[in-house]
Amino acid sequence: MPVGTAATVKAMTADAVRATGASIVLGNTYHLMLRPGAERVAALGGLHKFMDWPGPILTDSGGFQIMSLDKLRKLDADGVTFSSHLDGSKHRLTPERSVEIQHQLDSTITMVLDECTAFPATYETAEQSMQMSMRWAARSRAAFTARDGYAIFGIVQGSVFADLRRRSAEALGAIGFDGYAIGGLAVGEGQAAMFDTLEATVPHLPADRPRYLMGVGTPDDLLGGVQRGVDMFDCVMPTRAGRTGRAYTRAGVLNLRNARHATDPSPLDPACACPACTRHSRAYLHHLFRCDEMLGPMLLTWHNVTYYQDLMRDIRAAIVLGRLTAHAAEVREGWGAGQEQG
Amino acid sequence: MPVGTAATVKAMTADAVRATGASIVLGNTYHLMLRPGAERVAALGGLHKFMDWPGPILTDSGGFQIMSLDKLRKLDADGVTFSSHLDGSKHRLTPERSVEIQHQLDSTITMVLDECTAFPATYETAEQSMQMSMRWAARSRAAFTARDGYAIFGIVQGSVFADLRRRSAEALGAIGFDGYAIGGLAVGEGQAAMFDTLEATVPHLPADRPRYLMGVGTPDDLLGGVQRGVDMFDCVMPTRAGRTGRAYTRAGVLNLRNARHATDPSPLDPACACPACTRHSRAYLHHLFRCDEMLGPMLLTWHNVTYYQDLMRDIRAAIVLGRLTAHAAEVREGWGAGQEQG
Repeated sequence: MPVGTAATVKAMTADAVRATGASIVLGNTYHLMLRPGAERVAALGGLHKFMDWPGPILTDSGGFQIMSLDKLRKLDADGVTFSSHLDGSKHRLTPERSVEIQHQLDSTITMVLDECTAFPATYETAEQSMQMSMRWAARSRAAFTARDGYAIFGIVQGSVFADLRRRSAEALGAIGFDGYAIGGLAVGEGQAAMFDTLEATVPHLPADRPRYLMGVGTPDDLLGGVQRGVDMFDCVMPTRAGRTGRAYTRAGVLNLRNARHATDPSPLDPACACPACTRHSRAYLHHLFRCDEMLGPMLLTWHNVTYYQDLMRDIRAAIVLGRLTAHAAEVREGWGAGQEQG
Repeated sequence: MPVGTAATVKAMTADAVRATGASIVLGNTYHLMLRPGAERVAALGGLHKFMDWPGPILTDSGGFQIMSLDKLRKLDADGVTFSSHLDGSKHRLTPERSVEIQHQLDSTITMVLDECTAFPATYETAEQSMQMSMRWAARSRAAFTARDGYAIFGIVQGSVFADLRRRSAEALGAIGFDGYAIGGLAVGEGQAAMFDTLEATVPHLPADRPRYLMGVGTPDDLLGGVQRGVDMFDCVMPTRAGRTGRAYTRAGVLNLRNARHATDPSPLDPACACPACTRHSRAYLHHLFRCDEMLGPMLLTWHNVTYYQDLMRDIRAAIVLGRLTAHAAEVREGWGAGQEQG
């Protein structure tokens, strides 16, 4: 899912996002409740109409952003009070209020409010945090009005502790959700611990519901996540990297600011169908970044989102053909060939 | 002509520029000779391929930008020596070299190197400057290799002095060009003096060749320019205004940063077919600028360039129908209705 934090996938029109093959985008409850405000989005016909995205939109609950506010927020058993990073204004989010806001936004997939446990955490801290998230999950589920075409996902917590993850997964399964997210990862634990945690979690999730690894990750993280049973991902990496001149390609990551691209007439990724690759040379993309032209971030964001969509499309095809392991090895071999440092 | 200074119309893909109806864009010799360099553009297949614009490209001669360098340049009878605003490196531009660079860029319409006379100027200064520009025009013409599908335009100078403008126009006509530009205007003389100067110039230009008013201007300037016989214009206004939240519409200029748009569900300009107007509300555009999202400048640039193209398309249609005067009055009446201050 391309990330559309503030009702826009940064540097892309909605048409461009559609052209990448993306069928669902993510919006951020925290950002949207502050600006322009959920009531205003509702009055304007909902987030789909507002941002020209008639397809599904998943909204996070606001929990992750609020936890990262650090000193600007105060957590209690009932919810969290926080100060806006924009103007310092006070706000309150409870499981019920988060669900209500996501309803006002007309979110297709509502996420439960949770506490994204800070890393590292002691077992006791992680256990208490997970247990509170499970109580909040039950309250979120109860506050959600089921209706056709809309869904609510629970979020597994438990830091990197296998038995906490198992208990969290089982607790959510007992409540019953339309899909299950795995939260609290990609927060500094490293890829190996993340993969271990996935392996300790996924087997305890219902097999007939989508699994969503939140805030992840690199192309290699996505491959490894799918190999461990994950279906959905969201990450700012493709859009953020695109704005800074970094391109994900079938031959690894390239930094278009690097002088070696200055005279290169070849396409960024010859197998990619995006405008950056089909219409322009690496030399042109380098030129745009050298000149700080907006078209540089625009084209490279478009490319990176296309790359991520292609990556997932090819993974789905490999699964259908029963050759995911072989496919993953081929994709990784391609990256190795052209990986650029820095 | 949308302005593509550094081989990109700022904040627009080439596809988006085409979608506005634009058939020709402008490139800047000064900027391109410094970065990425004319030789490099030539090695990469020319400016058309570089920026994905197979259609015509007009390049200015570099004269206007160099004159504005002030202390960084030194003019002599043969040409001008200047220091790059980017790195201080020394460069030399003569009429012959400017034509050569534009040839390297594969410019469709080459402009002669001229001196854009500073405003205000005494009659004597303006006369000497104009006379030098006419000598440079003859040298530029001589240096230009005529070939199918390519053209060279002369540039009338003479500040706001009617007889200098007439003498300059006649001098260029005697040399013989494929088209005739009117330079040295929109430099502080005001619209009334600009229109007076056009009236003193255009009757002395060949009737069967295009006339191009350089660096102009507001929609009202374009209407008034056409009413005085001008065919072509270029200006950064639509793109620059778009990046700062200012929109040109059939009801006047709107500043989308203004709080009064925050809850407005109506389209920016209901008669416009661009994505900003057909897909989004004024409230959404306001939201994007409030959040400093790149999509704000992207959509508003797209809109403004569309508006300018529509303006000229409608003017052409009115000319064909023999009702330019009535049409101009109607267009101006529309602006009056919704003009916003600041």
